[in-house]
Amino acid sequence: MYSVITSAKNPRIKQLLQLQQKSSERRQTGLFVLEGKRELQHCVEAGYEVVELYICPELAGDAQASDYHWSLDSAKSPYPQPSIYTLPPALYERVAYRGTTEGVIAVVRARSIALEDLHLPENPLIIVLERVEKPGNLGAILRSADAAAADAVVVCDPLTDLYNPNLIRSSIGAIFTVPCVATTSVECISFLQENGIQILTAQLQDSHPYYDTDMHCPTAIVMGTEATGLTDLWRQAATAHIRIPMLGRLDSLNVSVSTAILLFEAVRQRQ
Amino acid sequence: MYSVITSAKNPRIKQLLQLQQKSSERRQTGLFVLEGKRELQHCVEAGYEVVELYICPELAGDAQASDYHWSLDSAKSPYPQPSIYTLPPALYERVAYRGTTEGVIAVVRARSIALEDLHLPENPLIIVLERVEKPGNLGAILRSADAAAADAVVVCDPLTDLYNPNLIRSSIGAIFTVPCVATTSVECISFLQENGIQILTAQLQDSHPYYDTDMHCPTAIVMGTEATGLTDLWRQAATAHIRIPMLGRLDSLNVSVSTAILLFEAVRQRQ
Repeated sequence: MYSVITSAKNPRIKQLLQLQQKSSERRQTGLFVLEGKRELQHCVEAGYEVVELYICPELAGDAQASDYHWSLDSAKSPYPQPSIYTLPPALYERVAYRGTTEGVIAVVRARSIALEDLHLPENPLIIVLERVEKPGNLGAILRSADAAAADAVVVCDPLTDLYNPNLIRSSIGAIFTVPCVATTSVECISFLQENGIQILTAQLQDSHPYYDTDMHCPTAIVMGTEATGLTDLWRQAATAHIRIPMLGRLDSLNVSVSTAILLFEAVRQRQ
Repeated sequence: MYSVITSAKNPRIKQLLQLQQKSSERRQTGLFVLEGKRELQHCVEAGYEVVELYICPELAGDAQASDYHWSLDSAKSPYPQPSIYTLPPALYERVAYRGTTEGVIAVVRARSIALEDLHLPENPLIIVLERVEKPGNLGAILRSADAAAADAVVVCDPLTDLYNPNLIRSSIGAIFTVPCVATTSVECISFLQENGIQILTAQLQDSHPYYDTDMHCPTAIVMGTEATGLTDLWRQAATAHIRIPMLGRLDSLNVSVSTAILLFEAVRQRQ
């Protein structure tokens, strides 16, 4: 039921590395790579199509290659069974992004969600990130968004793609559990305004402490980059400007930390 | 006033690399390495002794090697002027931990602060981290601690040293602005109890939502590792157990994010 690959010159191995390393390759093929059992499980449960599985039985430990059907079957996947390949440990280590952990790598078909595809509840809580640059930050924000049960993360004019290996890793699978939309700032602002969702922009100028701001109603928390903040487009579209008081000497918080503080203030107010 | 180094075989270059790469080397020599102008400035202002400066004038851009005296003079340093060396760009790139940014590397004498050395205000807010492992997480927590004006970060039985290059980098200098003590859990618990500081342990079992917990009084927020949480020692010493509600599917937050959420709840209550 599965093929054995032993050479690093195998064209599939080459494509695997390309998909990990190049966003252009991901864009052109519509495919991306993930590693790890937990990530695979969340991905399958979210209804993604797994196209190929690369397994190192020695490293996967508790499972033979054929056992990986469980995670695919369990979701009653509408897609054909993926092609399954096994790799010896030395070769696996060469292609694994995270080293030898877990022994399972999957090639998965990317999906894009549009703003109109979002199924929002009556009182949504949304994170908007303008021009987010670092995949690790976006992954960390998705992880916090999962914990806070945010209804969506919208990335506007992003400088990273959603399937960067660093992003998937730092999200520990939240890229599959939290609806994530890539769009433009202009479209996102229209969407929020049409749907009566208040726009709270995180910025220092003309702002109120975040804990003095009412987040009970439909709310989007909008974050800019650490270096330059938000553009005027967002500042002008804002319902209110909010800030986290900076009481120290460095005047600086990591954007994923700031986002989590604001998100959990909404959770606190809404509980 | 300064010497020129051009060879990677220069023994000073070798020691620089050792200090970056090995905690044992840092421990034995009592020295550590930092990079970046801002980090150097915070370090000098905090009264550390800079022993050596390595400057790449081409990369430092706005300054010649001799200009780096400003930051040392400005703090009215009680120490002798450091030895200053200049490096050509190619050599600088080989020794720089963060690549070519900024063109300044310093070798600095480590300091250790004991619990008894802390100058705490009447109503202190302290972060305690048990068995923290990842330097990047500790650095990120120090950065948040600076922003929240926490009075100290205490690391108990740590698995990383305080002068790991990754820690310094991710703290963006907060390792110098926030008093940071390394000690044992047993000593830290005694210290907190003797000083009448309530111990709030972050844990899921037997706990209350963090926002229902009063943090107006002298408070230590105690965090365990992401993998295994806190030991029984801390759980039993706790004044109260607090948790961040996990509303999503992954049941997981980054420890630096969790710490920041709890820390800023204290800020919110105290404002």
